[in-house]
Amino acid sequence: MKRGIFITMEGPEGAGKTTITHMLGKALQEEGYQVLLTREPGGVPIAEQIREVILNKENTAMDPRTEALLYAAARRQHLVEVVMPELDRGGIVLCDRFIDSSLAYQGHARGLDIEEVYSINKFAIGGMMPDATFFFDIDPGEGLRRIQSNGEREVNRLDLEALDFHKKVCEGYQLIMNRWQDRFIIVDAGRTIEEVFEETKAGLLNLLKESGR
Amino acid sequence: MKRGIFITMEGPEGAGKTTITHMLGKALQEEGYQVLLTREPGGVPIAEQIREVILNKENTAMDPRTEALLYAAARRQHLVEVVMPELDRGGIVLCDRFIDSSLAYQGHARGLDIEEVYSINKFAIGGMMPDATFFFDIDPGEGLRRIQSNGEREVNRLDLEALDFHKKVCEGYQLIMNRWQDRFIIVDAGRTIEEVFEETKAGLLNLLKESGR
Repeated sequence: MKRGIFITMEGPEGAGKTTITHMLGKALQEEGYQVLLTREPGGVPIAEQIREVILNKENTAMDPRTEALLYAAARRQHLVEVVMPELDRGGIVLCDRFIDSSLAYQGHARGLDIEEVYSINKFAIGGMMPDATFFFDIDPGEGLRRIQSNGEREVNRLDLEALDFHKKVCEGYQLIMNRWQDRFIIVDAGRTIEEVFEETKAGLLNLLKESGR
Repeated sequence: MKRGIFITMEGPEGAGKTTITHMLGKALQEEGYQVLLTREPGGVPIAEQIREVILNKENTAMDPRTEALLYAAARRQHLVEVVMPELDRGGIVLCDRFIDSSLAYQGHARGLDIEEVYSINKFAIGGMMPDATFFFDIDPGEGLRRIQSNGEREVNRLDLEALDFHKKVCEGYQLIMNRWQDRFIIVDAGRTIEEVFEETKAGLLNLLKESGR
């Protein structure tokens, strides 16, 4: 049984997710909450070694299913060594990307099939699904513009390919949110960082109060 | 579609499986068949790197599910780089241990659950189940005796633990054979290597003839 509260942050690149997560960690501490901010592989040596295999540039022959299994393996180890001990202590865990990233990126955008990628991740996480997931919703073009030198240069062919992939990632997230509606809190990330932060913080504090904290 | 024929060899340690597989490879070549003998990780660099993570003695914190996912990842890569190209060419592949070893060792003997370990391996192998699997059946005590210095010393406490594990592996194989009855050819491996070899060779040649080779 999970005694703590497990919250994940998801969204495409350029949505401000990582920045907001750090701001939230600070804000929660100021409100007197103890919170663990983490992201895979989270400094866990076994998960780091697995990530090295995934990211090794020599490994051009890597099959997409091999890659999905390796991500699931690294996820398991980070969960067991970092997330679960904190939840067992009754703590609050904010994790920057988790299972939904695999479902959206590898399951949908890379074309492996969401249900199949879910099956191996179910094995990896056991019953440890997040209690709530904030989704930072942004138009794919706007997200891409934000990560490309703040839009200072013109869009080239590779950027257009990137836009296509970006759209698929967002499409994948939509499918996932339809499947697990109750878990998601959707935040309009097309506004300023401050506005997005204030809304997310309010939502998060509400969640913590509802859970009796 | 699989054009070749994919045969796996399974059984607990001490059943003579590896020795017989090599003898079969030689015998099939003498009969004029081209055959690829392989075993995971099969010299495939990505699978070797994954195996290094599994076998690294520093990695004492490794969770059993992480390990099962890593084995499945290495299996996928060996399948894609070694087994599938040969099957696509219409070849005969003899593989020393495959999916059933994970089901028997990790799924049953290590207590993870056969169906759960099957689910991640199904993802790993896609539809590439073996066409036939030879199971080298041996009494657990006899198998253990064969691998312990040919029974020249007395059995100690660690050996008894090993016997217990060995029994669970055999029990796991029994469960697997009940679930996939049609695929298995059971060979009594309690006899001499020559006898076991002759029976397996006859069974294998029969299989190849039935497949029109």
